[in-house]
Amino acid sequence: MDITSILEEYKKGTLSLEAAQAALAERGRSHTAQTADLGFAHIDLARQERCGFPEVVYCAGKTVEQSVTILTLLMKKYDNIIGTRASKEVYERLLPDFPDVQYDDLARMVYQRKDTTIVNGDRTIAVVTAGTSDIPVSEEAALTAEIMGNKVMRIYDVGVAGIHRLLSRADDIRKANVVIVVAGMEGALASVVGGLVSQPVIAVPTSIGYGANFHGLSALLAMLNSCAAGVSVVNIDNGFGAGRLADILNRMR
Amino acid sequence: MDITSILEEYKKGTLSLEAAQAALAERGRSHTAQTADLGFAHIDLARQERCGFPEVVYCAGKTVEQSVTILTLLMKKYDNIIGTRASKEVYERLLPDFPDVQYDDLARMVYQRKDTTIVNGDRTIAVVTAGTSDIPVSEEAALTAEIMGNKVMRIYDVGVAGIHRLLSRADDIRKANVVIVVAGMEGALASVVGGLVSQPVIAVPTSIGYGANFHGLSALLAMLNSCAAGVSVVNIDNGFGAGRLADILNRMR
Amino acid sequence: MDITSILEEYKKGTLSLEAAQAALAERGRSHTAQTADLGFAHIDLARQERCGFPEVVYCAGKTVEQSVTILTLLMKKYDNIIGTRASKEVYERLLPDFPDVQYDDLARMVYQRKDTTIVNGDRTIAVVTAGTSDIPVSEEAALTAEIMGNKVMRIYDVGVAGIHRLLSRADDIRKANVVIVVAGMEGALASVVGGLVSQPVIAVPTSIGYGANFHGLSALLAMLNSCAAGVSVVNIDNGFGAGRLADILNRMR
Amino acid sequence: MDITSILEEYKKGTLSLEAAQAALAERGRSHTAQTADLGFAHIDLARQERCGFPEVVYCAGKTVEQSVTILTLLMKKYDNIIGTRASKEVYERLLPDFPDVQYDDLARMVYQRKDTTIVNGDRTIAVVTAGTSDIPVSEEAALTAEIMGNKVMRIYDVGVAGIHRLLSRADDIRKANVVIVVAGMEGALASVVGGLVSQPVIAVPTSIGYGANFHGLSALLAMLNSCAAGVSVVNIDNGFGAGRLADILNRMR
Amino acid sequence: MDITSILEEYKKGTLSLEAAQAALAERGRSHTAQTADLGFAHIDLARQERCGFPEVVYCAGKTVEQSVTILTLLMKKYDNIIGTRASKEVYERLLPDFPDVQYDDLARMVYQRKDTTIVNGDRTIAVVTAGTSDIPVSEEAALTAEIMGNKVMRIYDVGVAGIHRLLSRADDIRKANVVIVVAGMEGALASVVGGLVSQPVIAVPTSIGYGANFHGLSALLAMLNSCAAGVSVVNIDNGFGAGRLADILNRMR
Amino acid sequence: MDITSILEEYKKGTLSLEAAQAALAERGRSHTAQTADLGFAHIDLARQERCGFPEVVYCAGKTVEQSVTILTLLMKKYDNIIGTRASKEVYERLLPDFPDVQYDDLARMVYQRKDTTIVNGDRTIAVVTAGTSDIPVSEEAALTAEIMGNKVMRIYDVGVAGIHRLLSRADDIRKANVVIVVAGMEGALASVVGGLVSQPVIAVPTSIGYGANFHGLSALLAMLNSCAAGVSVVNIDNGFGAGRLADILNRMR
Amino acid sequence: MDITSILEEYKKGTLSLEAAQAALAERGRSHTAQTADLGFAHIDLARQERCGFPEVVYCAGKTVEQSVTILTLLMKKYDNIIGTRASKEVYERLLPDFPDVQYDDLARMVYQRKDTTIVNGDRTIAVVTAGTSDIPVSEEAALTAEIMGNKVMRIYDVGVAGIHRLLSRADDIRKANVVIVVAGMEGALASVVGGLVSQPVIAVPTSIGYGANFHGLSALLAMLNSCAAGVSVVNIDNGFGAGRLADILNRMR
Amino acid sequence: MDITSILEEYKKGTLSLEAAQAALAERGRSHTAQTADLGFAHIDLARQERCGFPEVVYCAGKTVEQSVTILTLLMKKYDNIIGTRASKEVYERLLPDFPDVQYDDLARMVYQRKDTTIVNGDRTIAVVTAGTSDIPVSEEAALTAEIMGNKVMRIYDVGVAGIHRLLSRADDIRKANVVIVVAGMEGALASVVGGLVSQPVIAVPTSIGYGANFHGLSALLAMLNSCAAGVSVVNIDNGFGAGRLADILNRMR
Repeated sequence: MDITSILEEYKKGTLSLEAAQAALAERGRSHTAQTADLGFAHIDLARQERCGFPEVVYCAGKTVEQSVTILTLLMKKYDNIIGTRASKEVYERLLPDFPDVQYDDLARMVYQRKDTTIVNGDRTIAVVTAGTSDIPVSEEAALTAEIMGNKVMRIYDVGVAGIHRLLSRADDIRKANVVIVVAGMEGALASVVGGLVSQPVIAVPTSIGYGANFHGLSALLAMLNSCAAGVSVVNIDNGFGAGRLADILNRMR
Repeated sequence: MDITSILEEYKKGTLSLEAAQAALAERGRSHTAQTADLGFAHIDLARQERCGFPEVVYCAGKTVEQSVTILTLLMKKYDNIIGTRASKEVYERLLPDFPDVQYDDLARMVYQRKDTTIVNGDRTIAVVTAGTSDIPVSEEAALTAEIMGNKVMRIYDVGVAGIHRLLSRADDIRKANVVIVVAGMEGALASVVGGLVSQPVIAVPTSIGYGANFHGLSALLAMLNSCAAGVSVVNIDNGFGAGRLADILNRMR
Repeated sequence: MDITSILEEYKKGTLSLEAAQAALAERGRSHTAQTADLGFAHIDLARQERCGFPEVVYCAGKTVEQSVTILTLLMKKYDNIIGTRASKEVYERLLPDFPDVQYDDLARMVYQRKDTTIVNGDRTIAVVTAGTSDIPVSEEAALTAEIMGNKVMRIYDVGVAGIHRLLSRADDIRKANVVIVVAGMEGALASVVGGLVSQPVIAVPTSIGYGANFHGLSALLAMLNSCAAGVSVVNIDNGFGAGRLADILNRMR
Repeated sequence: MDITSILEEYKKGTLSLEAAQAALAERGRSHTAQTADLGFAHIDLARQERCGFPEVVYCAGKTVEQSVTILTLLMKKYDNIIGTRASKEVYERLLPDFPDVQYDDLARMVYQRKDTTIVNGDRTIAVVTAGTSDIPVSEEAALTAEIMGNKVMRIYDVGVAGIHRLLSRADDIRKANVVIVVAGMEGALASVVGGLVSQPVIAVPTSIGYGANFHGLSALLAMLNSCAAGVSVVNIDNGFGAGRLADILNRMR
Repeated sequence: MDITSILEEYKKGTLSLEAAQAALAERGRSHTAQTADLGFAHIDLARQERCGFPEVVYCAGKTVEQSVTILTLLMKKYDNIIGTRASKEVYERLLPDFPDVQYDDLARMVYQRKDTTIVNGDRTIAVVTAGTSDIPVSEEAALTAEIMGNKVMRIYDVGVAGIHRLLSRADDIRKANVVIVVAGMEGALASVVGGLVSQPVIAVPTSIGYGANFHGLSALLAMLNSCAAGVSVVNIDNGFGAGRLADILNRMR
Repeated sequence: MDITSILEEYKKGTLSLEAAQAALAERGRSHTAQTADLGFAHIDLARQERCGFPEVVYCAGKTVEQSVTILTLLMKKYDNIIGTRASKEVYERLLPDFPDVQYDDLARMVYQRKDTTIVNGDRTIAVVTAGTSDIPVSEEAALTAEIMGNKVMRIYDVGVAGIHRLLSRADDIRKANVVIVVAGMEGALASVVGGLVSQPVIAVPTSIGYGANFHGLSALLAMLNSCAAGVSVVNIDNGFGAGRLADILNRMR
Repeated sequence: MDITSILEEYKKGTLSLEAAQAALAERGRSHTAQTADLGFAHIDLARQERCGFPEVVYCAGKTVEQSVTILTLLMKKYDNIIGTRASKEVYERLLPDFPDVQYDDLARMVYQRKDTTIVNGDRTIAVVTAGTSDIPVSEEAALTAEIMGNKVMRIYDVGVAGIHRLLSRADDIRKANVVIVVAGMEGALASVVGGLVSQPVIAVPTSIGYGANFHGLSALLAMLNSCAAGVSVVNIDNGFGAGRLADILNRMR
Repeated sequence: MDITSILEEYKKGTLSLEAAQAALAERGRSHTAQTADLGFAHIDLARQERCGFPEVVYCAGKTVEQSVTILTLLMKKYDNIIGTRASKEVYERLLPDFPDVQYDDLARMVYQRKDTTIVNGDRTIAVVTAGTSDIPVSEEAALTAEIMGNKVMRIYDVGVAGIHRLLSRADDIRKANVVIVVAGMEGALASVVGGLVSQPVIAVPTSIGYGANFHGLSALLAMLNSCAAGVSVVNIDNGFGAGRLADILNRMR
């Protein structure tokens, strides 16, 4: 209802003062996300409506108590809920109340996935990983995309030092709609994959390596400097961000 | 033709030895991009077929002679061709032979755009810029996307220090299919836009600023650490990369 | 008493030699902080008189023994005393002698707050925090300001990725006299708040985040590059410094 | 007028439909800054009302044309206007139309200062500078504060390597209401001044130095790590930001 | 002559005191390189004997005068002499006296190559380059190796973004005895080549790129973190060092 | 068999259709490394044939389970197998099945060395170490080279602060075919050794040191900037990479 | 004995061939430090003669076994011996054999100090420390200087934030012959002391601090950029190096 | 005169009120350096008395006008005066008034040296330089020390890549009282010299080099991590600081 209509209807009496006030407030509110204020956190309760998936909880830096409180509130309201970088203790505290809650040790994710509908039909997200040590980050990406309703194809340990491992999977990768490349050390895989496919490539540098790796800096800089088209980069070890972005891209049409 | 057919037809005599050899070689070659070897450069002549747009020439670090030679070869073969980070001299050397060639001072791009078809219908790419000083990078992004056949909406100078400038354009930005955010200094615009829209956001840090900006590092790090979903990052000042990726995303369906 | 008066009064005999010497020395001494020399530490015993609050003890890097000795000396002399980055052991060692001593687990602060007078009337300090994980630093700031006699308004978890959480609190923030903004990751909150209010904004980057956060560097650089007026920055995770500066600003008139 | 009143008065007829609409819109608009959209820039035309001083133009990265256009618009509307990091060419282009425009070579500021009222009575801002080479940044700070209506006391070349130069001016500095400390190299002056005064200290690191100065990094880090209370930091060489913040602090009461 | 022989011969009288002293001193001197002391430089006149090639002159940071003096001394004594990072002025000053002196604009090398013998028979050094912009560094490497007597195969512009350009040259590269890989931006070429060949790979990062390239840091870190066996790294843009090392490796047997 | 022969033989009937197909496929396959796909890893089973030594397993970042599975597969197939950066637990899990498996505490290497043939006759690799604290990295290099069939000479604790320790061993070092220099702190040993010998020098910076060592950065940068000819660098603490490269160089002829 | 004498005496027969050879060798050896080769370490047994104090053992990165073996060898031969960065376990292992061995918890030094002669008469070394948390590094410096025979004056906790604490001790500091300044955080103390005294100042940055301290980088850079004359810098937390250098300076005459 | 005496003499009348005031003030003033206040600079006119040499003028960042004004004031008052990092224009402006003024192109120093007395007798300062390109910094150090009255021995181009050049000069270097080592690139010379001599070594890293030299960072870090005793470090390219410190050390007795 626009302002004029509200004014008119109020004047006519078809809207009471309270209803008119509420209608005007509602207009404002549609700009304001509906949130639950826990004091230590404002939970966004309109995000699924606005963005297609409820708020995801970053558990690092929060107390177990805080994480559990927030996740409890969300898991009651939504079928599919994700907590990233969560300790196992968070999972164990949730389990009695939420029998469906799951925990992935590698990805350090706690999640509830009651709704397993695949929303994007045949559209697949490929998660391509340079080495076995990169798998924890890859799984965070893959799991995130799956819980959000996507089909995921995992292609692991195909780093560039043995380029034929990658080339032999090139046709598989080309079948995907979106490609996530996860690599540490020199991070070269993103550029090579970017040159092989015409789909968008989401590059995730990992902190795997040592010495002049500087906790992922080498892979990060390499990926940012990729000379291949269609490559963009998320934060070091940010598997979640890559999975979330892949989900967004996979819904584009 | 598959291997069996080639073998059979050679045995039958419908293929000569030379033709059979050629056919087998051809199968291999389809894996190899067709390139023109100029000695100092291998020009990819199959990229439009493979990726939807011909090779783009990065002119920095090349001599004017080299840039002109490569662009000449490409402009003869394709309608729309882009040279990035080009000096005006490259443009002036091309002009006599290519009357359609254009030069954009701000974006430092030389290009030929004979084909102005919009390939993606109503799908628009929004280029949102924090400040006026970021416009050269924004124009590189916008122009790239336009030359590749996209409709571009420019929304400039809406940085977060006056958040209402941005909010008043939020509905316009939400109408775009893909959003490019260009910002220097603290690079906060990417996170704020990422929280306002559900489309993918391509963040381009710029080197605009001074002091603890460290030539774009502040904006780069801020964008990589964005807590908003759907944000990925390209290199500092890489307007071209953002425009190219936006074109790829805009073609997804 | 100025030099001339001392000389005159000495000559007149209204000041004895000792008294004149003392008076002259006193003038010099007023420039020299009165300190208690513990060998390993010089405790400033005139700071409350000079700066409005006694010396605050930075406990990191000190042995428990050293921290306890210094705090004991100060707590005996002053009502309100703060020890920052203190282990719980320091608190437990003080408790038998100082029943009023308190410990805040989140802020890692040990403190005595016998005097709870609010010194600044209605003038409020707003502590605005991007995410729940930033609360330990925020609490260090808020508690510091409170112990020093200020009224504090806490507005937590209003980061820029959901800008409406912040906007819905903008009027509250504008009521404050000074604003502290605490944020990790991309640190964008400082710029956005700086653009919304006309009060001074003290920005505190936190080390919350991972990867290209580089232990708070991303937020620090972003805040230093803020394009909003009135924003200045303290060290990463320096909640105490922000609280102390806010107290100083809140006393200006 | 609040929503209820508007509704009631409209119903009563004391407000026409248009007036009621306007009143409701006005409430929204007060949140939205009024801006002039130049395409390449959105000029904030309500900032003086909102923040006490009109928008300041950062000229670096803008073309001379863009800077002149924006400054022209602002200088027509306001008495006192500042353009920072401006080339002399900008000034020369403005001079024919704005005979009052001035240019400061050291500070690289172009400005119009028609209104020279001192707004803060006796409240003085001290600008304290470590060395002669830091004067360009100091002058940017001092001039900014002066144009905004403050009284400024310049105390230059009192760096810590000869601490008595500083101590002999300590009483002068203590008379100020706000202190700006400008220093390059090791940036130690901020800590020493911070320990001498009880006023807020705004520290401005400069890029003066060489080698391990790393373009101001040494002074920046030193100032951020200051162990003195009441010190906060702005960007390297950001004299303007310091002057602007000092003006804000000087207006607090 | 060993010590015992010298003693014996001196005793016998076949060596005079002076000769015995000289012989003993000579033994010590053989440890000391014979040098020409120019005051501002000690020219090593025994390096060809010791290391297979005379001293190479790094001209950056030297005055033209100094470079010319040193090169003159060396060019008189040896057939093949190299000056790196030399301005054209050095060449022009040498030309009148050394008609054989040459200058390579791209590589910024001044050199005299009177002896063009290929010393290593069929052993070839492959110089593989990612992009056209890397050619100046590649040419410094290639030219260095050639002047030192090696056969060089140049394979330019085969960067990983179009992996087939590289794969189609893999067999050529495998024919080399030593491989130099020159790449800027993400520097991925070194890892991919390292995985394709069993020869030693000398990786040369270049400063080609911009933004998060940080003047070659991205390629440097990527190459240091290469997960391929047999890859070692020289300084950014150090084509000379790579050519020199390749020469050493090419002489191993 | 080349393509022509296959075609001819198929036509003649000496090859069946299946055999001809297989022969053609085999040609392609020889380009593709034969790998065992474990899901979480692609084990390269042709590397010994291709590169002279089987795949080496980097155990950091892998679970014990993953490391054991991969090493089991490789140890069954090959005599000599190396796992680097392995925990002792990996060794203990392998021991029951592989009685020959060994573990080196200092080098953190697990390995099987059934074949102790020296493959390079008299050619020795010298491993020269600056200090005792660098020995773990040196041993990783030395052990790697030994397991691959090389003779290794260890020269430890001859850092440059007592140059005579090094000079007294110079003749020994000159007898080696390849020299590995392992040094932390200022990393100067690489340059000094590089100036003493004409063989190739592989420099390994270590993270030994503290403060401005920045985890090996000081030694890394020093080695990359070495002004001695013939020095190239591998990653910080990468003893394995140095040993592997030395093996490759030692096989050159 | 010089060469001529040896030759002469051999000829005369006063030296046997063996004695002459030994005498000649001895001359060479005097250039070569006499070392004990433990395989993992070359212990310098001539350093006291050459440099005034025996080799000091850096225990970090060495096994307890290695440290104990080296220290045992040295403690047997010399009265005063130092092991830095030693664990208490090293001390406990030495105690049974060396009842005089001592351990300083703060400085993490193990040492034997049988000879307590003060070698430099009245010449004192002042160790001036910014804060209590810097004491561990200060004690390493002070103890080192004392064990080497110097008189040390400790002046602790006189950081610049309360400049009067320092000024009140200025006359004491001026009485010293050499001044060591130990400071973390902003490291400003070195510059202020450097401006107060005319003696040489050895600045030791410490890693005390957090956030933008970056493990001592802030103090290191500040000290390197000191504008005071006579200040030089050693590594972060290198109390030993400062104490050793102060000993050298204190012996100059 | 002490306070008591002043009081007594005033009482007795031997001091007038004014004289007593002056005497008391004088006592305070002795703490305050006497300075000439030029507005933009406070020139220290008591430094020669206090520190043995007048204030040295750092001309970088100052206008030519400012430098000339300050130098004029000092050159009138003192015989020997130094301006560092001065443009030739400063020299040319001074020449008409100060016929003795000199300019050194390499060192970029302007200076007046009317007094050429050698103050330290036979005590020599050795300036040892790695390469010819380091000479400008070396000359700044050498000239500084000479103007201050020291005898300087220059030993240039003896870098570690040819260690025998250095060893052959070791005895010369050992004759010096203080050693300055100037080196860029890997900066290894400081450690090697530090191990050869027992005198104090002042290490000056230079910015000579390229790539991973990062403008002197490699040499700086190497020198800070020197494992040789007696080495301390000044800022990159700070020849002046080294010369000044050497002068101070050379006066110690």
